[in-house]
Amino acid sequence: MATFLKAKSEKGRTRVKKTGGKFVYFFGSGKAEGKAEMKPLLGGKGANLAEMTNLGIPVPPGFTITTEVCNLYYQNAKKWPAGLEQQILDNLAKLEKSMGAKFGSKENPLLVSVRSGAAVSMPGMMDTVLNLGLNSEVVQGIIIKTENERFAWDSYRRFIQMFGDVVMNVDHDEFEHILETKKKQVGAKADMDLSAADLKEIVRQYKKIYKDKTGEEFPQDPIEQLFKAINAVFGSWNNPRALKYRELNNIKGLMGTAVTAQAMVFGNMGETSGTGVCFSRDPSTGEKVFYGEYLINAQGEDVVAGIRTPKPLNILKKEMPRIYGELVAIKDRLEKHYRDMQDMEFTIQEGKLYFLQTRSGKRTAAAAVRIACEFVREKMITEAQAVMRVQPKQLDQLLHPNFDPKVKKKKIAKGLPASPGAASGEVVFTAEHAEELAKKGTKVILVREETSPEDIAGMNAAQGILTARGGMTSHAAVVARGMGKCCVAGVSELDINYDKKIFKVEGVEVKEGDWISMDGSLGEVYLGQVKTVEPELSSDFDRLMKWADKYRKIKVRTNADTPNDAQVARKFGAEGIGLCRTEHMFFEADRIIAMREMILAENTAEREKALLKLLPIQRKDFEGIFSAMNDLPVTVRLLDPPLHEFLPHEEASQQEMAQVMGVSIDKIKHKVHILSEFNPMLGHRGCRLGITFPEIYEMQVRAIIEAAINMKRKGIKVLPEIMIPLVGTLKEFTFLKDKSLKVIEKVFSEKNDKVQFMIGTMIEVPRAALTADKIAEAAEFFSYGTNDLTQMTYGFSRDDAATFLESYLSLEILDKDPFQSIDTEGVGSLMRMGIEKGRKVRPGLKVGICGEQGGDPDSVNFCVAVGMNYVSCSPYRVPIARLAAAQAELKLAKK
Amino acid sequence: MATFLKAKSEKGRTRVKKTGGKFVYFFGSGKAEGKAEMKPLLGGKGANLAEMTNLGIPVPPGFTITTEVCNLYYQNAKKWPAGLEQQILDNLAKLEKSMGAKFGSKENPLLVSVRSGAAVSMPGMMDTVLNLGLNSEVVQGIIIKTENERFAWDSYRRFIQMFGDVVMNVDHDEFEHILETKKKQVGAKADMDLSAADLKEIVRQYKKIYKDKTGEEFPQDPIEQLFKAINAVFGSWNNPRALKYRELNNIKGLMGTAVTAQAMVFGNMGETSGTGVCFSRDPSTGEKVFYGEYLINAQGEDVVAGIRTPKPLNILKKEMPRIYGELVAIKDRLEKHYRDMQDMEFTIQEGKLYFLQTRSGKRTAAAAVRIACEFVREKMITEAQAVMRVQPKQLDQLLHPNFDPKVKKKKIAKGLPASPGAASGEVVFTAEHAEELAKKGTKVILVREETSPEDIAGMNAAQGILTARGGMTSHAAVVARGMGKCCVAGVSELDINYDKKIFKVEGVEVKEGDWISMDGSLGEVYLGQVKTVEPELSSDFDRLMKWADKYRKIKVRTNADTPNDAQVARKFGAEGIGLCRTEHMFFEADRIIAMREMILAENTAEREKALLKLLPIQRKDFEGIFSAMNDLPVTVRLLDPPLHEFLPHEEASQQEMAQVMGVSIDKIKHKVHILSEFNPMLGHRGCRLGITFPEIYEMQVRAIIEAAINMKRKGIKVLPEIMIPLVGTLKEFTFLKDKSLKVIEKVFSEKNDKVQFMIGTMIEVPRAALTADKIAEAAEFFSYGTNDLTQMTYGFSRDDAATFLESYLSLEILDKDPFQSIDTEGVGSLMRMGIEKGRKVRPGLKVGICGEQGGDPDSVNFCVAVGMNYVSCSPYRVPIARLAAAQAELKLAKK
Repeated sequence: MATFLKAKSEKGRTRVKKTGGKFVYFFGSGKAEGKAEMKPLLGGKGANLAEMTNLGIPVPPGFTITTEVCNLYYQNAKKWPAGLEQQILDNLAKLEKSMGAKFGSKENPLLVSVRSGAAVSMPGMMDTVLNLGLNSEVVQGIIIKTENERFAWDSYRRFIQMFGDVVMNVDHDEFEHILETKKKQVGAKADMDLSAADLKEIVRQYKKIYKDKTGEEFPQDPIEQLFKAINAVFGSWNNPRALKYRELNNIKGLMGTAVTAQAMVFGNMGETSGTGVCFSRDPSTGEKVFYGEYLINAQGEDVVAGIRTPKPLNILKKEMPRIYGELVAIKDRLEKHYRDMQDMEFTIQEGKLYFLQTRSGKRTAAAAVRIACEFVREKMITEAQAVMRVQPKQLDQLLHPNFDPKVKKKKIAKGLPASPGAASGEVVFTAEHAEELAKKGTKVILVREETSPEDIAGMNAAQGILTARGGMTSHAAVVARGMGKCCVAGVSELDINYDKKIFKVEGVEVKEGDWISMDGSLGEVYLGQVKTVEPELSSDFDRLMKWADKYRKIKVRTNADTPNDAQVARKFGAEGIGLCRTEHMFFEADRIIAMREMILAENTAEREKALLKLLPIQRKDFEGIFSAMNDLPVTVRLLDPPLHEFLPHEEASQQEMAQVMGVSIDKIKHKVHILSEFNPMLGHRGCRLGITFPEIYEMQVRAIIEAAINMKRKGIKVLPEIMIPLVGTLKEFTFLKDKSLKVIEKVFSEKNDKVQFMIGTMIEVPRAALTADKIAEAAEFFSYGTNDLTQMTYGFSRDDAATFLESYLSLEILDKDPFQSIDTEGVGSLMRMGIEKGRKVRPGLKVGICGEQGGDPDSVNFCVAVGMNYVSCSPYRVPIARLAAAQAELKLAKK
Repeated sequence: MATFLKAKSEKGRTRVKKTGGKFVYFFGSGKAEGKAEMKPLLGGKGANLAEMTNLGIPVPPGFTITTEVCNLYYQNAKKWPAGLEQQILDNLAKLEKSMGAKFGSKENPLLVSVRSGAAVSMPGMMDTVLNLGLNSEVVQGIIIKTENERFAWDSYRRFIQMFGDVVMNVDHDEFEHILETKKKQVGAKADMDLSAADLKEIVRQYKKIYKDKTGEEFPQDPIEQLFKAINAVFGSWNNPRALKYRELNNIKGLMGTAVTAQAMVFGNMGETSGTGVCFSRDPSTGEKVFYGEYLINAQGEDVVAGIRTPKPLNILKKEMPRIYGELVAIKDRLEKHYRDMQDMEFTIQEGKLYFLQTRSGKRTAAAAVRIACEFVREKMITEAQAVMRVQPKQLDQLLHPNFDPKVKKKKIAKGLPASPGAASGEVVFTAEHAEELAKKGTKVILVREETSPEDIAGMNAAQGILTARGGMTSHAAVVARGMGKCCVAGVSELDINYDKKIFKVEGVEVKEGDWISMDGSLGEVYLGQVKTVEPELSSDFDRLMKWADKYRKIKVRTNADTPNDAQVARKFGAEGIGLCRTEHMFFEADRIIAMREMILAENTAEREKALLKLLPIQRKDFEGIFSAMNDLPVTVRLLDPPLHEFLPHEEASQQEMAQVMGVSIDKIKHKVHILSEFNPMLGHRGCRLGITFPEIYEMQVRAIIEAAINMKRKGIKVLPEIMIPLVGTLKEFTFLKDKSLKVIEKVFSEKNDKVQFMIGTMIEVPRAALTADKIAEAAEFFSYGTNDLTQMTYGFSRDDAATFLESYLSLEILDKDPFQSIDTEGVGSLMRMGIEKGRKVRPGLKVGICGEQGGDPDSVNFCVAVGMNYVSCSPYRVPIARLAAAQAELKLAKK
């Protein structure tokens, strides 16, 4: 030890500026310096180990280096802060004392694990080294102490492999190759079949490959091992997969990872040892059952990596009833203590149970909803707390269609129902390929032997994940549930040939590009593409939504263009339509012809003639929507896209159109040419069309009002809100409002009847927000079109931004995609300004949002904060918005 | 009279709400109720007639109905305010008394003219009716009174023609046809050759055509004539040509036109009568000479319409020396009184001189500059007043190139030097054709017999106007001078054949589409396209600019991409370069290949290789510019446009490029395809390129700094300012600033030398203005790119907006084109916000503008008001900006 330290000082280890303070927190012997609330400083793992220690739960002792140190490490060009080294050595001494063993001692050796742990759980993303402290001498001590030579050499070879991989970046495959070669050579099927001598030989070969690859001998000094491992964990904070994970999960503002060094306990010391993971309730369904898996004679990594398929806990009840009893008692205590479902790791060393970790368990949306509701029923939490317990985004899983149960499916395999949902897609065999195809809009299912953290981006791009190995807590399963992706895991009969790009299962051969479907709730795989149906929602779901609605103040509307969409949304709790896009109505076969006639018209008279054909069609559409939305407001946006979108751009389709309409193709080509624009997003569209061709909007307004009166006469309560898009100046608005009012008065007098109505505007051009005080003089409501507002505020064309947005996100120039979630700083400041200015001249001004961000929880939070009256989102996101809105209010109230 | 009123009340003339107040102002008998300061209420004509009356100048008496009435008329659905009718009748009675004559009387008839007159002069735009009060009885009275039967019938036929045309919209040509037919029939060459009998017969035919076209008899009641004429003048306020004129001249905020009814005096009562227009100085050159034209035995319309070519005033001096003396005395008085060059109309009735109008005369820029300076020398005005006297926009005329005097020109004709400047273009014969070709970018010269107000748009579209008839005060001449367009008028030998689309002159035949050139200062016309040279600026121009600079505080820089541009701008007084666009440097033949190699590069290494070829080229460009701008700051903008702009898009050019570069055309096509964007304006350009391909900006920064150091070593004082375009977030800026600083430090250490430099940003994305407080943390200067900022704030693509902008302007949805002049309400509020936020965190922040509006006087005014440090504009607009900036300060000081 002294030697190592001396050598280091000779090399001139630079002391960085004194920061003082406490860098290391001890836990052990029933007492810990930390506690659960110190998560930001100690990481989730460190804080919970401390908390468990204080609760008297059997936890191997250890110490945690704070996240602050990780931050200082990066700030100081990867150097340790002054004082850290001494604090580690002091705590190591305490640990030795607590364990009655010595680090590096041949006689009574202490081995430790070194683990990462940030304030937010990032499973499998960062590095861990087990069995640290072994060297050629210590291994002999272990042999003597455990009287288990095989165990000692196996531990040593695992340590070299992990240390080599994690700390020194020696390719994992190099070690695996040696292991596999040896297994073949001695005819061993599994690792377990290798003898002590085999493992000893493997250790020799591991050390050789280590030296070949790193240019150094495998370190014999345990302190050197420890310090290097600590730095490796710090380093893993910024490895590509950890960065990607934080990006995907939008995790930011953390200082770094903590590092916990903990006395090793061994699940692989024979048949009275074992290791497992468990959940205090079922993380898939939320059912109140003790749920978990374990392996006898194994180390934790064997469970998590999914290499051996573990056994369910109810078998442990029979195999080790005492241990099982202890497990149940502790999990009950932990769940009550934390008032949340717990995800725990345990190890049994020669008949003694240790807890290595507890944390709030990741869960499916269904489980989250059920657990929250049951906790309320069990009086563990309040309704408001329950509302805060479910991630709004997660609800997506519950709301999307499932497979139609009436459709006959060709089942080809069954595996573990690792993450619920229904998915169909083309088979791909690599994560890269999945990403590539998904970018082109192809739906894919990623099929892998097992997944690893390197596959994250591909998993995210896929509709679902299918694996041959691994259990319910394998990498694939945990990550897929977190993502809300459908996953079927552990289909052991799956025979994958990566080279030929096929898999075989039950005699069926499936090639890359073939369609398969999967039900993640049943764990079933089907051939081909299977039709989906609407999901059935649980009573707990309704209950939670009702609680949410109690706290929610902002209204939630939907974006819906058809009566069917409107009905779905209403079922999900929509309180009106915030955006009914009239242009989508024109694309159907019977309408597009009249629309095209209108576009080809040479003058106002011809245009009016074509519009006269569209009038009854539009009116009928509106009647359907008003009827579906009886007693709720319906905001109809007048025609928005540029006219060229309604014309075919390919020669063949133009030819077809020419034939159908009886005009020359040259006329069509000419019109397409005339209408083509350099920047159509900023071109002749929205109210600009309404101003240059007033007869279009006049027809639409007539259709809306006629439909409203017709429905009113059928006893429907209609509340139409006419919305003018792309307004940038007051005069644009008043010009069109005046024209609309004239049409409305005309219809009223023709029908000798009236309906209530409003005329308002979208705020989607920056100038509209900047001059909202002017526009609000005439506009009766505002609806933020945040898609376009974001495009113009950033100057980003959404259709083109992919070429640089990805770089922007990976270089952290942007924290998040502003098209997904409102940029509160830039776009948001315009929105705030627009609301303030608008309400200054029209105090009761109704303000909503109808951009796609309307269903994004962070954006809903912002909309609540700035005092909007409603958000509007796609039908399937209505419950998400309801929950997010409730949470926003609860958070505001907390402040 | 009573009959008419009774008939009116029977028809139920609706009285609009009582507004009270004085609607009519009398002038006459040496005393007027109005005065010059009442222009907004009485119009320029009414106010000046009142003023002249009060000055004792012989003005026929009359009364003026206020502009307020015109406004009320439009507000009240074209009905008169209560009380107006009575006030008119009262004033008519006063007028009768003053003239000792009776309106409608057979014995002693009073005739009046009814004229329009807004607060701002709009020559020829609105309607006038002369000789009003004539009917079948009154004409007999005139015959008796004047003993001139021919005059009486000629007056009557003119009255019917004007009244029919102006008040009742009977086509002018209908009357002309009758007149021409009669002339042919009796063998009359000119109107003057028609006898009293001929004219009487014409009157009969006029009345018949009037009845045929209007369905009513020509009104015999003079009061009905008067009231209808008044309404016609109100109506002419919003006729298309008046609207167009106000749009072109950006005249707004007026209440309407006033209407002046004034006793008729006749210039067509024989050889002792006449009419003319005159200027107190030469409106073309500013020379202090009495300048004007007149016609004997003619009415005013004959001079203005350009139908007969009038005689210069010096002939009047011989023909009527007494009258000439009176004229000179009065014009001197008026000029002294108004302290400005006057444009006056006069009529001589049987040897007695009357003034019908005086106003500040329109003048060329050269004249404006000279007159302002001479007025200072004559101690009539102060230097500051002189600075305010010249319209900055007008200077354009002085600054643009003239024909190279050394080039031999083929002169084909000489006419009047009606409006100075040099112009070349293809011959067109109609205003519509001129507009059409100009839209396609073709330069045209509009060739007409004479122009009329209907031709305004075509005149505006043309490079210059050439007419066969009309004098220096003809329509073509007056309008062209106002527009700053070159015009040669009255080329009487011009033989135009509209049908064949040719003109012949001096034996030369010129076809439509042939090139001609014209010198508007010499009145010469040349065959073909003539080379131009830089203008020589007068010493008065320099003097005025120096006075302007005394009052100016804001700096004026230039947008210049080449050393040559930089030199021109410096000569015009530029105090630095505000925008040097580096991309323009890449388009020249020797550079585009390296640029294209860079774009085709498959990876960073290839890209760097191509950039290495561009480095010395860029460095040399910068050396030239730094050298031209010794001791002045130079702002260099890094690459801005999307890369596809540097690739050819047509097959043939792609083929050529493929050959030159030795790559396959498919590679080029593929790259063009990859780089194509839906909305390139909002795509992968500006700093987004800098971020995704950092090596491009690194090369440019290196070129700038190396050039700066090289020039510094040659004794040049270099002040480079590196400008990053299209920044929307702080992080974009800091990312690129950091990379730039690294390159700069590297160059400093390589060269072992340093230069001062700044790194700043364009503010052209709305988000940049909204978050200027963040961006200013790192950016050392801001430069508003108002072209893009306007595009994004409005959501208008400048390249596409033509399709609706025209409608927007004509419908008055927009007051002006926001790309010409800053939209102070919308874009301006963002600019104001950006400056305030920026200076909050960086108090001394230097802020400028480099969009095209930087040379627009209204925009300069705004930039001064918001406290910018400089404006930057094209070299030729530098003096305009200097003058506008001085005026802005003087206006601010006045407040």
